[in-house]
Amino acid sequence: MMRLKLYGTDIPNAGSGETAATVGTLATPALLLDKDRLDRNLARLSSRMAARGVVLRPHMKTAKSIEVARRAYPSGSGPITVSTLAEAEYFAQYGLRDMTYAVGLAQHTAERAMRLRKVGIDLKMLLDSPEQATILGEAGRAAGVTPSAFIEIDCDGHRGGLTATDPRLFAVADALAEAGVKLAGILTHAGESYSLCTSEALVEAAENERAVAVAAAEKLREAGYECPIVSVGSTPTAHFAENLTGVTEMRAGVYMFFDLVMHGVGVCTTDDIAVSVLATVIGTKPEKGWILIDAGWMALSRDRGTAAQRADQGYGLACDLSGKLYPDLIVSQASQEHGILAIRSGSAEALPDLPIGTKVRILPNHACATASQHELYNVVAAGSDAIEAQWPRMRGW
Amino acid sequence: MMRLKLYGTDIPNAGSGETAATVGTLATPALLLDKDRLDRNLARLSSRMAARGVVLRPHMKTAKSIEVARRAYPSGSGPITVSTLAEAEYFAQYGLRDMTYAVGLAQHTAERAMRLRKVGIDLKMLLDSPEQATILGEAGRAAGVTPSAFIEIDCDGHRGGLTATDPRLFAVADALAEAGVKLAGILTHAGESYSLCTSEALVEAAENERAVAVAAAEKLREAGYECPIVSVGSTPTAHFAENLTGVTEMRAGVYMFFDLVMHGVGVCTTDDIAVSVLATVIGTKPEKGWILIDAGWMALSRDRGTAAQRADQGYGLACDLSGKLYPDLIVSQASQEHGILAIRSGSAEALPDLPIGTKVRILPNHACATASQHELYNVVAAGSDAIEAQWPRMRGW
Repeated sequence: MMRLKLYGTDIPNAGSGETAATVGTLATPALLLDKDRLDRNLARLSSRMAARGVVLRPHMKTAKSIEVARRAYPSGSGPITVSTLAEAEYFAQYGLRDMTYAVGLAQHTAERAMRLRKVGIDLKMLLDSPEQATILGEAGRAAGVTPSAFIEIDCDGHRGGLTATDPRLFAVADALAEAGVKLAGILTHAGESYSLCTSEALVEAAENERAVAVAAAEKLREAGYECPIVSVGSTPTAHFAENLTGVTEMRAGVYMFFDLVMHGVGVCTTDDIAVSVLATVIGTKPEKGWILIDAGWMALSRDRGTAAQRADQGYGLACDLSGKLYPDLIVSQASQEHGILAIRSGSAEALPDLPIGTKVRILPNHACATASQHELYNVVAAGSDAIEAQWPRMRGW
Repeated sequence: MMRLKLYGTDIPNAGSGETAATVGTLATPALLLDKDRLDRNLARLSSRMAARGVVLRPHMKTAKSIEVARRAYPSGSGPITVSTLAEAEYFAQYGLRDMTYAVGLAQHTAERAMRLRKVGIDLKMLLDSPEQATILGEAGRAAGVTPSAFIEIDCDGHRGGLTATDPRLFAVADALAEAGVKLAGILTHAGESYSLCTSEALVEAAENERAVAVAAAEKLREAGYECPIVSVGSTPTAHFAENLTGVTEMRAGVYMFFDLVMHGVGVCTTDDIAVSVLATVIGTKPEKGWILIDAGWMALSRDRGTAAQRADQGYGLACDLSGKLYPDLIVSQASQEHGILAIRSGSAEALPDLPIGTKVRILPNHACATASQHELYNVVAAGSDAIEAQWPRMRGW
């Protein structure tokens, strides 16, 4: 399943699948994954959910890698969440069967998803309108399978879904029954929690997410509908929820890697961030306080998620080869293949002396966006510079 | 050389290389390329440069596709510009030989580039320090080839390079001679032109780019150095330069596709934009003035280059399936796989009625960033909805 480059195969990390010896010998830019931090992050949330008797359904949109999924599930068939049907098809080939596609459906996705149900994959869909229920029912009939779908609930005005008090909730449930679609349950996502930064606000957002989801499920049950699953989740609320009464499953994705946005929200420390972009110094402009590196937005992504937070990290925070932070050294600007390192404005720190060829590691604003710019993870252990493996990522739709 | 997905191959545009019948049958999101607009954009700049006797060296960082390169060069060996050595290796396999790698070098790129020179590729490098000249000379000696490099000149404080009056210019030229590296010439890039929006300012930026480049070349020539090539370029200055006296070659990349940032700068109209992202309506929130589509930042990129321009286009401008703009309908918000269409604030336009399943086309802020999110181009002709071909893109470093 590795999607290999057919050129440059003699170049370490050119996607050849060959494993380079050390971080120091990798061609740059390159994506590094600290597997010990990954395992620690996975264990942190899974034990938190286990202690509350809530099923954890990790979202694979961040990692898009079977090797990462197998760190969470050394064996077994899930459960997982996916953000594209290409992810569902990819993970299905590795034996994962219990999946939720957490994006609203249209006709082409309904038909494509039913092909997976036809081969025994328990892929559950998401919708919030009677029209979508009808479309899904028709796709199921055409494929000769019984579809299963969640009704999306809007708990904080973030994106899609119906509010728990919206009378259309019953119209959708009726349309599902009429279309011959199994009601899997209700699903909500506290997307607005990403904009918070105090534990009080995060605890409140988590309780609101729970309360709205449970209220919607209760409404359906009181009206006689079966609503087995109450699915909530976002990385911030998953880590700050104090009470999950009535919730049956939790979804989260970026918690596996964490990033500077999650650090700004207050969910992790910079020492928890498992992914970084290895870059090389290719120029210096001391007169401007600049160090040029070969990681621009193509390697870091254009994500500026920390711009709205208390600490704007530019395009990322710079660390040395061992992962030790340089005080207040950020990627202040990025073009396609160039990044500019500079001291954060207002800081009294001095620009470090990094000669041409110096390797640095950049902690990303948004792990989902940064990882998606790369073909594979160069896997390292904490405190070691040996590349233990190269794990490919899938992409596309 | 096609880098095919190994799953989902029965899905139109899942990267299988199979050509879907029409735009209407493509799974979404998908990248569309209007080949007639591409050809018109290519012809516009090549005829402009031909009329001025200046060599056009197109930058392939935007398209990253041999099929697109072959629209510019139906045959022959270039010249082209590349932004990564993976691009150089990719294009070399298709017979392109005259290349400039327009990113500053370090040891690993010098060594990797010399492997291409060893097999007869005329790959010219870029540097702005004596240290880099020494590194390149050593790599050349180790590979048994004579390297060739440009000295980077800084014409507007945008990024790297030496100012034309910097005495280090001669130190670099001396270091190149001492290291046995051929001085290809000088190279500059008017990167600040992207922030302009009047023809007067663009004409001025182009003249400054020319004057600084020619002054640096003259200084070197007066001191007895050969400086054959005077290379300048950015898409805005390439289209607004009135006088190119002393310039021998022009570099530009995004002009092939154009985008909303270039539209905001004033280099193109929206009818010149050759790439768009096909998306499907997956939800509606009339009470909030929202239409949800299945193209989020994974399909559109996180680039918000129009945010600083007079017209902020959000994450892109919405068109119908035929490419006709919906008045003031923009992608106002984007998450990983969701986009929210809304009427631009301050506009009196009404939200169009787009039911679930409606297909729309989104014009991107930044073609380089948006195209890089996709594996292939679905090629269409102007005014036709037939997919004529699927052209793969290369990626990585």
